Amino acid sequence: MFRSASKLHATLMTRSMSSSANKIGFIGLGQMGGNMAINLAKAGNHVVVFDVVQGNIDAVKPHGKVDVVKSPREVAAQATTIVTMLPSTPHVEQVYLGKEGLIHELTKAHFLIDSSTIDPGFTKKLAAQLAEETGATMVDAPVSGGVNGAKNATLTFMVGGSDAAFAKANPVLKQMGKNIVHCGDVCTSSLLLSSSHFFVATGQAAKICNNLALAIEMVAVAEAMTLGDKLGINPKVLAGILNTSSAQCWSSSLYNPYPGILENVPSSNDYKGGFASVLMRKDLGLALDAAKAAEASVPLTSATHQLYNMVVAQGDGMKDFSYILKFLEGKKAK
Amino acid sequence: MFRSASKLHATLMTRSMSSSANKIGFIGLGQMGGNMAINLAKAGNHVVVFDVVQGNIDAVKPHGKVDVVKSPREVAAQATTIVTMLPSTPHVEQVYLGKEGLIHELTKAHFLIDSSTIDPGFTKKLAAQLAEETGATMVDAPVSGGVNGAKNATLTFMVGGSDAAFAKANPVLKQMGKNIVHCGDVCTSSLLLSSSHFFVATGQAAKICNNLALAIEMVAVAEAMTLGDKLGINPKVLAGILNTSSAQCWSSSLYNPYPGILENVPSSNDYKGGFASVLMRKDLGLALDAAKAAEASVPLTSATHQLYNMVVAQGDGMKDFSYILKFLEGKKAK
Amino acid sequence: MFRSASKLHATLMTRSMSSSANKIGFIGLGQMGGNMAINLAKAGNHVVVFDVVQGNIDAVKPHGKVDVVKSPREVAAQATTIVTMLPSTPHVEQVYLGKEGLIHELTKAHFLIDSSTIDPGFTKKLAAQLAEETGATMVDAPVSGGVNGAKNATLTFMVGGSDAAFAKANPVLKQMGKNIVHCGDVCTSSLLLSSSHFFVATGQAAKICNNLALAIEMVAVAEAMTLGDKLGINPKVLAGILNTSSAQCWSSSLYNPYPGILENVPSSNDYKGGFASVLMRKDLGLALDAAKAAEASVPLTSATHQLYNMVVAQGDGMKDFSYILKFLEGKKAK
Amino acid sequence: MFRSASKLHATLMTRSMSSSANKIGFIGLGQMGGNMAINLAKAGNHVVVFDVVQGNIDAVKPHGKVDVVKSPREVAAQATTIVTMLPSTPHVEQVYLGKEGLIHELTKAHFLIDSSTIDPGFTKKLAAQLAEETGATMVDAPVSGGVNGAKNATLTFMVGGSDAAFAKANPVLKQMGKNIVHCGDVCTSSLLLSSSHFFVATGQAAKICNNLALAIEMVAVAEAMTLGDKLGINPKVLAGILNTSSAQCWSSSLYNPYPGILENVPSSNDYKGGFASVLMRKDLGLALDAAKAAEASVPLTSATHQLYNMVVAQGDGMKDFSYILKFLEGKKAK
Repeated sequence: MFRSASKLHATLMTRSMSSSANKIGFIGLGQMGGNMAINLAKAGNHVVVFDVVQGNIDAVKPHGKVDVVKSPREVAAQATTIVTMLPSTPHVEQVYLGKEGLIHELTKAHFLIDSSTIDPGFTKKLAAQLAEETGATMVDAPVSGGVNGAKNATLTFMVGGSDAAFAKANPVLKQMGKNIVHCGDVCTSSLLLSSSHFFVATGQAAKICNNLALAIEMVAVAEAMTLGDKLGINPKVLAGILNTSSAQCWSSSLYNPYPGILENVPSSNDYKGGFASVLMRKDLGLALDAAKAAEASVPLTSATHQLYNMVVAQGDGMKDFSYILKFLEGKKAK
Repeated sequence: MFRSASKLHATLMTRSMSSSANKIGFIGLGQMGGNMAINLAKAGNHVVVFDVVQGNIDAVKPHGKVDVVKSPREVAAQATTIVTMLPSTPHVEQVYLGKEGLIHELTKAHFLIDSSTIDPGFTKKLAAQLAEETGATMVDAPVSGGVNGAKNATLTFMVGGSDAAFAKANPVLKQMGKNIVHCGDVCTSSLLLSSSHFFVATGQAAKICNNLALAIEMVAVAEAMTLGDKLGINPKVLAGILNTSSAQCWSSSLYNPYPGILENVPSSNDYKGGFASVLMRKDLGLALDAAKAAEASVPLTSATHQLYNMVVAQGDGMKDFSYILKFLEGKKAK
Repeated sequence: MFRSASKLHATLMTRSMSSSANKIGFIGLGQMGGNMAINLAKAGNHVVVFDVVQGNIDAVKPHGKVDVVKSPREVAAQATTIVTMLPSTPHVEQVYLGKEGLIHELTKAHFLIDSSTIDPGFTKKLAAQLAEETGATMVDAPVSGGVNGAKNATLTFMVGGSDAAFAKANPVLKQMGKNIVHCGDVCTSSLLLSSSHFFVATGQAAKICNNLALAIEMVAVAEAMTLGDKLGINPKVLAGILNTSSAQCWSSSLYNPYPGILENVPSSNDYKGGFASVLMRKDLGLALDAAKAAEASVPLTSATHQLYNMVVAQGDGMKDFSYILKFLEGKKAK
Repeated sequence: MFRSASKLHATLMTRSMSSSANKIGFIGLGQMGGNMAINLAKAGNHVVVFDVVQGNIDAVKPHGKVDVVKSPREVAAQATTIVTMLPSTPHVEQVYLGKEGLIHELTKAHFLIDSSTIDPGFTKKLAAQLAEETGATMVDAPVSGGVNGAKNATLTFMVGGSDAAFAKANPVLKQMGKNIVHCGDVCTSSLLLSSSHFFVATGQAAKICNNLALAIEMVAVAEAMTLGDKLGINPKVLAGILNTSSAQCWSSSLYNPYPGILENVPSSNDYKGGFASVLMRKDLGLALDAAKAAEASVPLTSATHQLYNMVVAQGDGMKDFSYILKFLEGKKAK
């Protein structure tokens, strides 16, 4: 009974606020989400935020019209378009389905954009449950580009959802990013999708595929730079060769793991900042789960996951993932 | 004193032959070497060639002033600048040190450019022996760019040698390539070099480092494309995402292993042409030898070498190295 | 209301049957479970069975006092001691918690022994839910020893549970196996267990650890035998050396993957029978899931999982796991 | 002239000593060789020794009739049966072929037993050269059993050579070991042997195959014990399970890497003593070289080699190879 009354209330509130079309809810104001929310506020939107850390909220508030509420469900009571940016699958489950979760206020007017990087299997199930029980539409839209991309609104969003849903998400995401890619418009051979009408989770899938390749390529560059150094090639000369030939990759030319090759990358700042090894391990773990479900052979993804396992086990999980170069060199030897 | 006299003599000889200043010896006229020699001939040089296969010689002859001789030592008798382009370490040993090898005619006027990809340890020893026993100077200058690069004179040459030697090699190599990189001008920390005055073999080292990174990155892209495909992402959409984000690499953007993404790459031509898996296995083997000598940890190089071992063991060694995608998919399942 | 009535009914039935102390329920009559149930029947127990395949039931029926029922819940209505032997986590979930699942008839008199090999995390949750909602006690008791062990009642059971629960399971398991090992009597450092009173799932954990080591050791022997063969050592001589020195292992001395070394093993029978590669892949997958949850580094488990992935992808998943030797040799080359 | 005179001298000496049939030369008196030579002396042989370290010589001298000479060639001048036990291929090259090497005194009366673990390719070439240039016969006879085996004369010798050569080596080796295995009596399919009459080097091949399997199995046990520990199984219980089921291996039952399971193994003594990680890395390196030459796929050998590379790079190369368990746990985390 409480639920129906509450829903009615929410519906009324939504209606009463329909004059302010650009009200956007935002849940999860960490390093990524905080900057994304700030960009929405700066762009003139009225942003309704929730986070469990007061400091995160304080960092966002000064940047525009920002209302703070006490729970995810209150966000849903105030806004029909909601962005979530959370650290892992259990957090997403809690925010959407928990006791004070979004689900208790959702209606078919609601449109949810989850930018977290999580298990695509869970994303699929969540989207289906929300649609069935509340009528709400959810897309997944994980990002690449890091904290700098979040700050500068140059993120790439990988969006999984129908054409209509993508069209709806696009103007919101454009205010936080530069490339908004629709991953799920064409369904190919996948068994995994055959039993579903949803293209949701192809954003997650794309993110996972990107990051497994990124991690492996970083190790590739680290091995090449380490070996070349030991063989007597000047590291700057070697980096120049890699960058102008067939081994060129983002990790060599824009994020080189060898200290001193590039300025303003973590390797030149004692591997501080950047993308923590423990997070790369997490993404590789998601990739392996997805590969297991899809029965795909991914030998180097698997080997790389174990390398980051070792980095974390040795207490270096907070170092940027380019730290793998130092791990391969053997830290104690330095 | 003897040395200066000898130098004077050499200078005189060089001068006396200056009418034929552009006489260049070339040994090894296979797919790569043949095209390289043709470019030298087309550029107006007088080229003295040797190869054991008559067909290879016939393909080069029509393209300019080309003299054919019967042995490596006859090449050395005719030309003081000599380029060698051979398939493996034993071939290089035979051509330089064998019964009819170059060494029997070399003087300190001779300048040798070895563009083969071989064991850098052997290169070092060979250069030292030639210098000691004959006074000749050798640089190593392995290439990247493949058969097309050889045809179009767009190869990258990675040159190991002193500044003076590089200066001498450069005008010759410019006629066969686009990027001529000096790898060995600055010596860093290497133990391997500490007992040697020579920067020779840094070209080999650079080539090896480039190719190990290339091989690993190719597998990275193959794993990402295979997994993404199975997860329901359109391969063209996925390739687009990789190419515009942090997983971008040459193997994704210019040599994608998934059939039909790019035209004119081996994956779109049943993996014919290109760079054979058996050759990539060879280069990875050289990388592992070098890593063992240098005590470098190269876990993914090692894993990738084993993957190409399996490809070759299954009888697919002649397929382009991007065929690893099909191997991961499991050919029989298709 | 229906549930309580039903529970009362079950309780009454249980009571009325208390004269027949050796009534045992058995669910899952496949190759393993069928033989285990036959051994229980042959030993004089009154066995109440359920399976979805009629042929499986028919194979068990003639071997003693065997009653057939139509659902898991009917098994629970007829017997308080129940053994389950099912292929994977979803099957266990269905049999215990599904619409016609055991849970609907369980009381605190019930004692459940799950011999399936499944995700230990699920086992923990299931045991906790059953205890909380019905008062029933569950232990996990996965097996090793294969179909022959099941036939000859020589299985090893790895039992997770309290001392009391182990004491209760032991006489039942003794009728189907030779070694009944209590894995969960002493809890050590594990984070995973710290929030739980249950030792349940240590059986699964032990099984997983055993099987990951088994799989890796099999590949170790396969690599040694393959290499030795290519180096010219007679495989029987080599097997003899391995078996009498520091590389000795079960896979070399009792299950050698090289054809013709041992009689009556799958390698000498075209890799038929035995333990299918696809099942070994499953167990390695469970090991990786557990390792991820426990943050353990398991590089060779991970590499071996990928090797079996490739075997399965090439269509050889039904071959015994010792077939990895043939995979490494490169089948097409033979 | 010097050579012939010297040879004559040697021949005369040999003749004059023919009364003492049991004169045995021994070169290389390290931890292994020293104990082996002591066992020969204790058994009543007249042993002629050479080593570059005076302390090694002093340790052997008191144990029987031991003559010390100043070079390998003097050993050959004094004894026709000679055992060599050296750390690596270059040492063997130096002792046999160096300026003061054995080759300068060898005659066809000489019989050489090389117990070093080295590159089998080099062994083949060396044996052929000795036979051709001096008529001497060489067998290879690498050992397993470690320092304790050397002390207690319980080594296993893996002997490569013809039937006749094995018959001659056997009585000598019996005084230093328990199992004397003839590896090279039957030649199978190998390409590598096809061009040779010699079975020499099959001892090396067997040793290499044994040690690669040993290393992989050790990692297998380390992964199982580490994971089981983290999953809450008592390590002693888990070791007991492994040792009585299909994962049983020498590394689990006689050399368990988990501290405190077994007494008197390195893991229970802070990983001191035993077989150093850096030596296991060396043997894995030899295995990979052999596998490359033989075109064998050895993915786990390769992965394990890299793991020991990392152990050594972190400064732990002198720890016993069972230390891999601590490496996987992540030392800093402890």
